[in-house]
Parts: sequence; C-alpha cells; structure tokens
Amino acid sequence: MSRVIVVGAAQLGPIQRAHTRQDVLKRLMALMAEAASRSCDVVVFPELALTTFFPRWFEPDITTTNHFYETQMPSSVTQPLFDEARRLNIAFCLGYAELTHDGHRYNTQVLVGKDAKIIAHYRKIHVPGHEHHEPDRPFQHAERYYFEPSQDGFGVWNALGGRIGMMICNDRRWPETYRVMGLKGVEMILCGYNTPLHYAPDPTQDRLQSFHNSLVMQSGAYQNGTWVVGVAKGGCEEGVDSLGDSAIIAPSGEIMAQATTTDDELLTYACDLDWCNNYKNTLFDFNRYRRPDMYSSITAQRGVVLD
Amino acid sequence: MSRVIVVGAAQLGPIQRAHTRQDVLKRLMALMAEAASRSCDVVVFPELALTTFFPRWFEPDITTTNHFYETQMPSSVTQPLFDEARRLNIAFCLGYAELTHDGHRYNTQVLVGKDAKIIAHYRKIHVPGHEHHEPDRPFQHAERYYFEPSQDGFGVWNALGGRIGMMICNDRRWPETYRVMGLKGVEMILCGYNTPLHYAPDPTQDRLQSFHNSLVMQSGAYQNGTWVVGVAKGGCEEGVDSLGDSAIIAPSGEIMAQATTTDDELLTYACDLDWCNNYKNTLFDFNRYRRPDMYSSITAQRGVVLD
Repeated sequence: MSRVIVVGAAQLGPIQRAHTRQDVLKRLMALMAEAASRSCDVVVFPELALTTFFPRWFEPDITTTNHFYETQMPSSVTQPLFDEARRLNIAFCLGYAELTHDGHRYNTQVLVGKDAKIIAHYRKIHVPGHEHHEPDRPFQHAERYYFEPSQDGFGVWNALGGRIGMMICNDRRWPETYRVMGLKGVEMILCGYNTPLHYAPDPTQDRLQSFHNSLVMQSGAYQNGTWVVGVAKGGCEEGVDSLGDSAIIAPSGEIMAQATTTDDELLTYACDLDWCNNYKNTLFDFNRYRRPDMYSSITAQRGVVLD
Repeated sequence: MSRVIVVGAAQLGPIQRAHTRQDVLKRLMALMAEAASRSCDVVVFPELALTTFFPRWFEPDITTTNHFYETQMPSSVTQPLFDEARRLNIAFCLGYAELTHDGHRYNTQVLVGKDAKIIAHYRKIHVPGHEHHEPDRPFQHAERYYFEPSQDGFGVWNALGGRIGMMICNDRRWPETYRVMGLKGVEMILCGYNTPLHYAPDPTQDRLQSFHNSLVMQSGAYQNGTWVVGVAKGGCEEGVDSLGDSAIIAPSGEIMAQATTTDDELLTYACDLDWCNNYKNTLFDFNRYRRPDMYSSITAQRGVVLD
C-alpha cells in the first residue's frame, strides 16, 4: 500500500517593503485555496514568507526592525491563515522571523496540522552571511546580525502520515543537514529559501545559483532516500533579483515538479513516501553500510585542519 | 598565481577474464603515453584496473581467486608501468585488489609520484554489495566477501603541488567521504569505479545510474570546494554492462570533461587548484559556518534511530 502526501509548493514572488502583512496574507490564502482545490494535504510557503527579506539592510539599532518579526504565532494578523487552513482541512508550513519574549531572534519555520495546531517549530541552524555592516556590498546579507543560530538541533516529526523534517535556506547546502534527519528516518524535508542571484563574496558563483540550488537538494534527497520540497521567495524584491526554481524532489533525486516563474506559483505533486524505502533499504541501508568510526572529524572539528 | 594540475582521466573499457595482466598493462601504458603527450601531470586509472571485476562471481574457496589480487606493488608484472611513468615524468593513480602477506584482502588504490615512488595507499572504506552467495541475482556483487573494509580512514596527501585525496567507487555516494577529506583541506579527489547498470536489489534505480553517478560527485565537489576525478571501467565485461561517464568535476560542481564512450578513453583538463578557494573561503568557510554540535548523530550512530 502506498503512503501518498499530496504536496503544494507555494512559491512567492517578491514582497516589497511597502507591502503590509494583510497584503501578504491575501496572497498566502489564495495559494492555500488553490492547493486545497488541487487536493493538497499540505502547502509549503517560503522562508520569511510574511515580509520582505529585511537582512538586505543593516539597521544599527536592531529594535527599529522589530516590526519585521513575529512575537507570537499565530497573532491576530496571522490567525486568518490558521482559520482558513482548518476550514480547508490542509496543513501548512510557514517561515517567518521570530522574536521571543526574552529577546532572542530566530529565522523560524512552523509546521501546522490540518486542525490548525502547530505540530513543530524549526529554527535555522546554518545562518549564512555576515555579522557587521559591509558597505561595499550592493546589498547586505546580514542574517548573522538579525538571527541567532538555533541551539535546538534538527527535528523529524511524525506528521501527515510520515516522518517530516524541516530546514531553511542555507541549511540545504550542508550535507550534514540531510544526514542528521536521515538518521532519524526522515521521509520528507520541507525547506523555504530566499536566494539572491548575486553573491557578493564571490560573484563567479552568480551564474550557478540555479544549478547549485538543485544540486544540493537533489543529492540530499538521493543520499538519504527522502523527498525534499524546496520553496523560494523569488523575483525582484527591493531591487534584488532572487532565485525561483522551487521544486519537489523525489528520493531518487529526480525533480518531479519545478517552478517556471519567479512569481506566486503553486506546484503540486503526489509524493509516495514508500518510494523512500527503495533507497533506505538498499544502497543507503545506513546500518549495513555506514562507517561512523571513519567520520570522527565531522563532529570533532569545525574548520579545516591540515595535518 | 594559479596552481594548475593537468589531469588525465584514463577510462578503461571492459577487461574480460581471459585477458592477461600483460594485455591490460599494454592498454594502461598506451593511455599513460597519450596522457604524457597531452602534458598531463597525473593519469588516473579505474578501480580494479588490472583485472576483470571478479566480485561478480562467487567462489566458495576464496583462495582460488588469489590470482586476481596483487601481493606486491609494484610486482615484476606491474613494474613496467612504474618504469614508463618515471620515463615519461608522469604521476599515476591505480586501483587493484590487494592481498597482504598476512592474508587480508582490500580494494586498494595507490598514488604514485613522477619519480615512480608510491606516495599514498588508500583502501576502500564503504564496501558495497553482499557477503554471501545470492543465486537469484543475474550476477553477484560480492565485494563484502572479497574485501575487508579499511580501518585506516581517509587520507589527504601533499602531492602534485596540492592536497590530494582518494576514494573508491561506492565511497563517492556517501557525503561523509568528501566531508572528512574536506576537513583536511582536500583540493582534488581521485576516484576509480566499476558500476554495473543493473542494480539487483532495486532495478528501478537502473535507469538512473548515470544521473546518480554525476550527482554525488558534483555535489561532493561543490560542498567541499574540491576537484573530483571519477574514472570508470565501463562497457560490457563478461556479459555485464557497466557505466562509463568518467568525469573531471570542478569545485563549482560543474563537469569540465566527460567520457563519451564506454571504452578506453582519455579525458584531460587543466585543473586550477586555486578555484577551490572560491568556495572554501566563502560559502563553505567551514570554520565560520559549520555547526558540529548539531551533527552528533552522524558519528554517534550508524543506522536510523526513530525517536
């Protein structure tokens, strides 16, 4: 018997600074309604899906950016999305900036069940970019100023009839991300991202953004026998062009659906979780074939050590 | 200033059981001469480059297969390859079955310098396939019967003006392989392989052999900022079709040269090791961005643990 989750990957086009939460909520609810009409069990929204990608600006007084963060989820503003999910009987995954009551700031994603109850929180572990203002860049990528790295670790939750994990944006470039979840038996990883096409530290990588995005998600899927759902906020946001290329990727590493625009766009695919076993029980039978005694440096050291 | 290694990837077509070591040596020396004429610094031969891929047969008395193994390297039979390398001033990498004096059997690769002295040995860590006879398969893949897994770990050596690592065949499917070498600052990984197109435990993977082969080497290269040189023994060997697709892959993950046949074929590329730094010093600055405290399960457990 197959175990199928019908997934909707709800790519967003740009959210400009002038757009209100209400403007954005309308777009999310339209995509959610479309997903429900296409029989989706879950709709996946991008990283920082409620606001513009504000780490592109450096504000010396960080408290002046508090309005970009959510202090509760749901809030009175986001409650309608939860209500609509319950009405439509659809789960969803949503990325947003989180400001905790004790003043911590995280890049966060929640998984919300069909009953509109939060199943799981995930806070970004691999926070990219820089800590300080770098005025020579055409735009900032100051995520390490705006967000603390999670200390909570990666999670995999029993949800939607399978083993569901989450990661956010830059997490997807690190094979450890997939492996830690693979070792927890993950069958589907939900991932939102915002990826500017221009990478200031090394512009030779700009032409490869699309290739690299697919490469890391496809290999992570294959090497762990898991579905990966990657969902972009793309297009030209406040003058910065960002990658679309949202994709639903099979445990074989194959791209089963991919966005063709950089705007609001829904992709859907009926994902059979039992396909994971074709890989988990053969080539990537971890218990039979892994050699953790040979991997000690992966956890024993952070950076390169030349012997 | 750039640091360029001109690499020759010397793919081999099939080696049938009836072919002698001398037959094979002729082919290796022809490819080595071609590589030297094309200014290569090093020529890379496949896994088990001196014999047919004998793990496809199960011999209950393993000692009857001793003739497939080398008990010394070089031996009187393989010495001419070393002599020719010294004469041509070219380094080489060679895979073969190793039988030690105390009776251990390994799937081994050596890196030999331009002076024909052995720089490094590597023994395969991720030994795939099965331990026992499985008569229902159209052919065996009994590597786990014929070879012990290495206990020596992955190495990276100062050679050819750079940091050179080695892996063999199935090692390339495991992201830990690249990462352990990446943490030693590897700039080029040399990898021989024999990959039958038919995978008996899950034939749905057969149509994807070429895609998977490229996917894992390209992602491993990109995620560690290293060159990867993958070299096949391909074609129809003793009735078993095997993948060609030998490739020279850049630190960007791009394929810079790839075989177009499944026969003896030399690919060459001038590999600039300084390209590695574009990745090692930016996106994949491990010391800045890795989170080993979040990866503990990678070394603490071998198989999947459901919590």
